[in-house]
Amino acid sequence: MKPNVAAALEALSHLDTTVNPAALKAQSRDFFWYSPVLKARLDGVVADFAVSPATEEEVIEVLRTCYAHDCPVTTRGAGTGNYGQAMPLAGGCVLNLRKLNRVKEIHPGRLIVEPGAILKDIDAATRAHSGQELRMFSSTWATASIGGFIAGGSGGVGSVRWGSLRDLGNIIRLRVVTMEAEPRILEFRGEELARVSHAYGTNGIITELEMPLAPAYDWVDLMLAFEDFPAAAAYADALANQDGILIKLATVIEAPAPALYFQRLKGRVTDTQSLVLLMVAPQAIDAFETFTARRGAAQILYRSDDCDWERGPGLVFEYAWNHTTLRALKVDPAITYLQVRYAFPDHLERVEEIRQVFGDEVLQHLEIMRTNGKVHAAGLSLVRFTTEERLDEIVRLHEEMGCMIFNPHRYTLEEGGRQSVDAIQLGFKREADPKGLLNPGKMISWEDPDWRYERMYAYPGLKDQAE
Amino acid sequence: MKPNVAAALEALSHLDTTVNPAALKAQSRDFFWYSPVLKARLDGVVADFAVSPATEEEVIEVLRTCYAHDCPVTTRGAGTGNYGQAMPLAGGCVLNLRKLNRVKEIHPGRLIVEPGAILKDIDAATRAHSGQELRMFSSTWATASIGGFIAGGSGGVGSVRWGSLRDLGNIIRLRVVTMEAEPRILEFRGEELARVSHAYGTNGIITELEMPLAPAYDWVDLMLAFEDFPAAAAYADALANQDGILIKLATVIEAPAPALYFQRLKGRVTDTQSLVLLMVAPQAIDAFETFTARRGAAQILYRSDDCDWERGPGLVFEYAWNHTTLRALKVDPAITYLQVRYAFPDHLERVEEIRQVFGDEVLQHLEIMRTNGKVHAAGLSLVRFTTEERLDEIVRLHEEMGCMIFNPHRYTLEEGGRQSVDAIQLGFKREADPKGLLNPGKMISWEDPDWRYERMYAYPGLKDQAE
Repeated sequence: MKPNVAAALEALSHLDTTVNPAALKAQSRDFFWYSPVLKARLDGVVADFAVSPATEEEVIEVLRTCYAHDCPVTTRGAGTGNYGQAMPLAGGCVLNLRKLNRVKEIHPGRLIVEPGAILKDIDAATRAHSGQELRMFSSTWATASIGGFIAGGSGGVGSVRWGSLRDLGNIIRLRVVTMEAEPRILEFRGEELARVSHAYGTNGIITELEMPLAPAYDWVDLMLAFEDFPAAAAYADALANQDGILIKLATVIEAPAPALYFQRLKGRVTDTQSLVLLMVAPQAIDAFETFTARRGAAQILYRSDDCDWERGPGLVFEYAWNHTTLRALKVDPAITYLQVRYAFPDHLERVEEIRQVFGDEVLQHLEIMRTNGKVHAAGLSLVRFTTEERLDEIVRLHEEMGCMIFNPHRYTLEEGGRQSVDAIQLGFKREADPKGLLNPGKMISWEDPDWRYERMYAYPGLKDQAE
Repeated sequence: MKPNVAAALEALSHLDTTVNPAALKAQSRDFFWYSPVLKARLDGVVADFAVSPATEEEVIEVLRTCYAHDCPVTTRGAGTGNYGQAMPLAGGCVLNLRKLNRVKEIHPGRLIVEPGAILKDIDAATRAHSGQELRMFSSTWATASIGGFIAGGSGGVGSVRWGSLRDLGNIIRLRVVTMEAEPRILEFRGEELARVSHAYGTNGIITELEMPLAPAYDWVDLMLAFEDFPAAAAYADALANQDGILIKLATVIEAPAPALYFQRLKGRVTDTQSLVLLMVAPQAIDAFETFTARRGAAQILYRSDDCDWERGPGLVFEYAWNHTTLRALKVDPAITYLQVRYAFPDHLERVEEIRQVFGDEVLQHLEIMRTNGKVHAAGLSLVRFTTEERLDEIVRLHEEMGCMIFNPHRYTLEEGGRQSVDAIQLGFKREADPKGLLNPGKMISWEDPDWRYERMYAYPGLKDQAE
């Protein structure tokens, strides 16, 4: 099977396609460069052409045509992922869904939307319609697409209340087009959702989503300073366990990261202060203040409903989740990160054990969230990068101490996840992408069923166009 | 201090007062007769007169006048309590707040309302205004007042999501009038709320409430049948731990109670079937079905969104919380109940231990709810009553097995609670009701500071008007 990319492009030339090198490069990349490991491997990845269909019919035409010409298709939302999810390792076609961005229907508690719609635009539409918003979103809310979030993300702002995208109820329905001679349109609900959610577009293209909504309150953004990191973590954890205090975000960032990396806080936070970032519903502000006064140790550094700073810090969630990493990276390019799961019930003890081992080589950044009904912590630790070997060792040491790592320095589904075959996703790929043309190189179990995860997987089809 | 009730009545005769015996009796009672113990003690309790002010000014006038004449004042919402909360043990005046029932303001996430407003009417107003409803309500929603719920209740439908009324954030503000020569108007928030919430009107009269709201979805009512009680309890507990599946109620009722006591289910539920009652948000129904299919053992007996019964069962929450007891009592007057706290994390194991001890003398009725962020169970066990001694023994055996009992067979705050002085409520009573005229006999620490809780407290001022 040899791709005939030129023939595919030719056949699609009546659509919105491009081969402009700058445009192609831009549409072939995401935020993979957060990882020095991925940067070293994926920097030369570029598609041969990009196409931006405006309708589901055009998506189908692209898939039918690329199937006929054996041309790889890597689907892209807004390219705000961190693991090369949307990067065309084998070249070929980038299917850019940005024009498929209509908000189709809004109902109490749910909406129907196309995948290219930007999270911020969705929330603007649902808020204006009926005071609603998405249950959860990535910190790249202002630029990320809903399709990319579902296909490439796992949770985010709102996970402290609603858990993860993979939890039942956080996605209602996905409409999916297959990569076959004659693409089929399928509607997935319930158990079927696991086939294509968080599958990086390796086994079908999402053309419509039905998502649950929550009330859109005028969230009060807060930054609290603590002189003691364990006290900050315990405070955020306890607040998230307050059933009557509605919050959407609880983030803990260890000193001196806030002083070093949050430039808009310069002069306001000291290098001994750890921060807790919060989004609190306005009707819960009294209760928040009462709770905080009981705990004692916190200093309220910033609150969006009562701020006299000449220049405010902006949205608080843009200091949280992977925006913490981004801000650190901007100041110190040697910083990278890890994704750690500190499981209930001893998550805070585990964090302290880790802190003792690594000191300031690994600064703690915790996102307080829920899994199976319990509040615990997801770590997006800030790691001072030296070598790949040391980074792998840091991963191994975490695992030896009982922490699960979702490695953000890998570009495959399995290595970024639980390092095991996802039989549901693989099974559906066999059905929906028999030629294996969708986002090649991202699903190890398709490429190399006997892979043992002893070292980093290197996709043999990787096409470095810079070479 | 001798009350001059006649003078107080005379001075208030320009207001809406009554001395009509039937009206007086009706306004002097609540659902105390759920308890054979309370029935034996309180059946003859009747006020000397009742007054129904229509404004806060009239409330103040009643309090000022009764204070001047040393006339006891027992405040009443709709009289749907179960512990004689609103029964005038010392006679005197019943202050009926039913006419103080305006919904004053509705905002995103909160409303301002007068105490006499009926929960159902509040929800109708907030739903029509902006698709909102109260976070939680008692199963007496159709007839209970919001003031009575706050002053005499602890939680209910919605507690599976939001915890209890005492949790920070579940009451925003209370406006309170004191019982002094010149009554003061106070506004309580934060820590101050604990002074008067769940104080039975013993230390101030609530004239306005600010309460948080949640989205009013078209909840789907469900009844699921299980052949195995532990499986039913484990199912409900696990469902309530699903962060992405929004529910408002999860109730578990042990066989054969549903077959025996739920007459609208006659012929539909067998005497070996335990029931789980649920309210599920419509946008979560797919996820609910997926979750339920995974667990296997449940049979969906009823769902309000797909019902072909000739006569439906009505609202599912009217089979839950204390409506379970009510339905049992209607069929078998020998049934009474207990309120048990099965604490996280071993709540389900504890329930099984209790079941082994009591067999069908105590049938399990669990309300799945949250406390401190954790899902656990509150028991409103159905008890086959024989003697007061045996009932006390059942209480003691529960306590010996590590279960906290909130005894519904007592009419004092302390005995229905944690059997200890509430220094905050007592301290505020000293300030706000110096003559001790508000709801006499309900706060032991006021009446008898040295009381040891070795036996049931008997208020020495109890006036049995039937004698």
